[in-house]
Amino acid sequence: MDKQKLIMLPGPTNVSERVMRAMLGPVINHRGDAFRELYKGVLEKTRHLFQTEGDVVVLSSSGTGGVEAAVWNIIRPGDVAVVPVFGEFSTRLAEAVEMAGGRAVRVTSEFGKVPTTDELKAAMDKQGRFKAMYLVHNETSTGVAAPYIEEATRLAKEHGAFAVIDAISSLGGYAIPVDKWGVDVCITGSQKCIAAPPGLALLSLSKGVAEFLKSSPPKTRYFDIPRYLEYGAKGETPFTPALPLYYALDEALGELLEEGFAKRVERHERMSGLLYDGLAKMGMKAVAEKSVRSRTVVASYYPQGVDDAKFRKALAHDKGVVIAGGFGPFAGKVFRVGCMGQINEGYVSTTLKAISETMAGFRN
Amino acid sequence: MDKQKLIMLPGPTNVSERVMRAMLGPVINHRGDAFRELYKGVLEKTRHLFQTEGDVVVLSSSGTGGVEAAVWNIIRPGDVAVVPVFGEFSTRLAEAVEMAGGRAVRVTSEFGKVPTTDELKAAMDKQGRFKAMYLVHNETSTGVAAPYIEEATRLAKEHGAFAVIDAISSLGGYAIPVDKWGVDVCITGSQKCIAAPPGLALLSLSKGVAEFLKSSPPKTRYFDIPRYLEYGAKGETPFTPALPLYYALDEALGELLEEGFAKRVERHERMSGLLYDGLAKMGMKAVAEKSVRSRTVVASYYPQGVDDAKFRKALAHDKGVVIAGGFGPFAGKVFRVGCMGQINEGYVSTTLKAISETMAGFRN
Repeated sequence: MDKQKLIMLPGPTNVSERVMRAMLGPVINHRGDAFRELYKGVLEKTRHLFQTEGDVVVLSSSGTGGVEAAVWNIIRPGDVAVVPVFGEFSTRLAEAVEMAGGRAVRVTSEFGKVPTTDELKAAMDKQGRFKAMYLVHNETSTGVAAPYIEEATRLAKEHGAFAVIDAISSLGGYAIPVDKWGVDVCITGSQKCIAAPPGLALLSLSKGVAEFLKSSPPKTRYFDIPRYLEYGAKGETPFTPALPLYYALDEALGELLEEGFAKRVERHERMSGLLYDGLAKMGMKAVAEKSVRSRTVVASYYPQGVDDAKFRKALAHDKGVVIAGGFGPFAGKVFRVGCMGQINEGYVSTTLKAISETMAGFRN
Repeated sequence: MDKQKLIMLPGPTNVSERVMRAMLGPVINHRGDAFRELYKGVLEKTRHLFQTEGDVVVLSSSGTGGVEAAVWNIIRPGDVAVVPVFGEFSTRLAEAVEMAGGRAVRVTSEFGKVPTTDELKAAMDKQGRFKAMYLVHNETSTGVAAPYIEEATRLAKEHGAFAVIDAISSLGGYAIPVDKWGVDVCITGSQKCIAAPPGLALLSLSKGVAEFLKSSPPKTRYFDIPRYLEYGAKGETPFTPALPLYYALDEALGELLEEGFAKRVERHERMSGLLYDGLAKMGMKAVAEKSVRSRTVVASYYPQGVDDAKFRKALAHDKGVVIAGGFGPFAGKVFRVGCMGQINEGYVSTTLKAISETMAGFRN
């Protein structure tokens, strides 16, 4: 078995010993008081995470499952959704809308950039009324963050649409106060900025969307959000929960709240700044312009001639630092460094030193 | 936090220390060699479990998610499926077919019994050709097992249909040699007879169904089985796997194979016999007739006047033994004892003694 390396991936991330050990909690009946107490605690902490008084649910699935839930519960055949598309995950989101029988109006920009709010507004105005806007906040595939959740949400609401934000790789590194901004559904994953193990998806639901969902049950049972709300009210999940992951999530959210949300967000901002600066000093070019660069996924072009697979293998093997490659048009040309969860000065300096030393060998 | 009780639920079940501790394995890149090695090992052991040379997949979801995958990947709008309905989980299966736009031909019996193969054959003959038969092998809700997987599968194939077996609460306590019997899809869960923590669903796929799936991608991404097969071939999952649960599953399947499949099945048979006999000696009546009684879920009627909730609370609190109540028409009238995974003479005698002593107090 592999020994623990420094995991600088855009998820999963390093998990603290305290959170790992929480998984050893006892097997309990998920229809009993001990689980109800655990899950109610998880839901309460999740409300803090989303800064909401509204409903939240935690699904036993990856973030992709959470997105699927957000699509299948809202989109009915013939419904129109506006989807800014600027990377792999927003591409998938548009496809998910179509799989559910909806029509996706794509507002595109090239990978590494993000559509502007003017472009978004123009597409919405042209469409008139539509069912929902699905915005990937942070494109894990390109290291670009859409810097306008609040504005995009307002625009969507003006068109009578639900505003759905995929914040899988950003919430916790960014604050997204969903009540204040009017976000209807916000989705995140356990294994990114929350720094719990992978396997759970967390969703917030506005009053408006919760009412709609209750009146219009979806064609899926496993991702049937109204059912999760009904069971959640008594502290249960409709189906067998992935118990060890709930223990770990509870502990990780506890860590997050102990640190304080504002401090954690500021830490992510500061650490990503150090990463961007450090890479720039090595002469490397970030994929994203500064105004849209992500605080949680730092994507950079390789210098000419560096072999992606060989470089990352050497980095992991010789230095024990694990980073990710590029997606789609960026495959082979770009590397991505996660700046999430437990990220700190030590991780950043170890990573920069490892990249610098390993790169030196490749430039010779 | 609750201290560990004896979990005699029909899942989740007691998990060995060795399997629990496996979850502490290092966070690794799910696109790297260490994960590929882990997942390939899991798939290989899963093939042993299903006794198949064919494809298998492991989904990061509960068993319900596995069933949803087996429905959404096969049923298209207008398709007909024959579904024996004799409890809560087979009722849900028929509903799942309808959610996917299919038509469910229900072959029903009252809860606690199981439709006969003659009834099944008559329904199939009347229908002529249809897309699939969905058979819940072991009705966790009633403690009844359909004693005819092989025959039902043969009947379905004679009608050109796929044979899909929900063996979530039985495989491991029963042997289901899917290749030998011609089963197209068999589904099980990690937290039942495999005795791993909850959160993973395991599926086997016949060559025939795998070919169909590849030619006809489903309208779901998270449960897109062809995509799992494509990624599985290189030892990966399409979406972030619930890593700690894969470590645990690998260890639990290792335990199972070390014990030997035949021995494990025989142990389940013997232990359930002791449970049925012990309860009969206390004057209690099993829900199921002996010919269809389940080897993994022992369901029994309460003696007149015993309050279900109070009884189970006393059993858990005073004796540390956790069992389950009844479902649907059996709620309040029936209790269910899991006989799964780690089940052994000690667990059985502790459970019987605890039930006997606690019941005595309730009969006074």
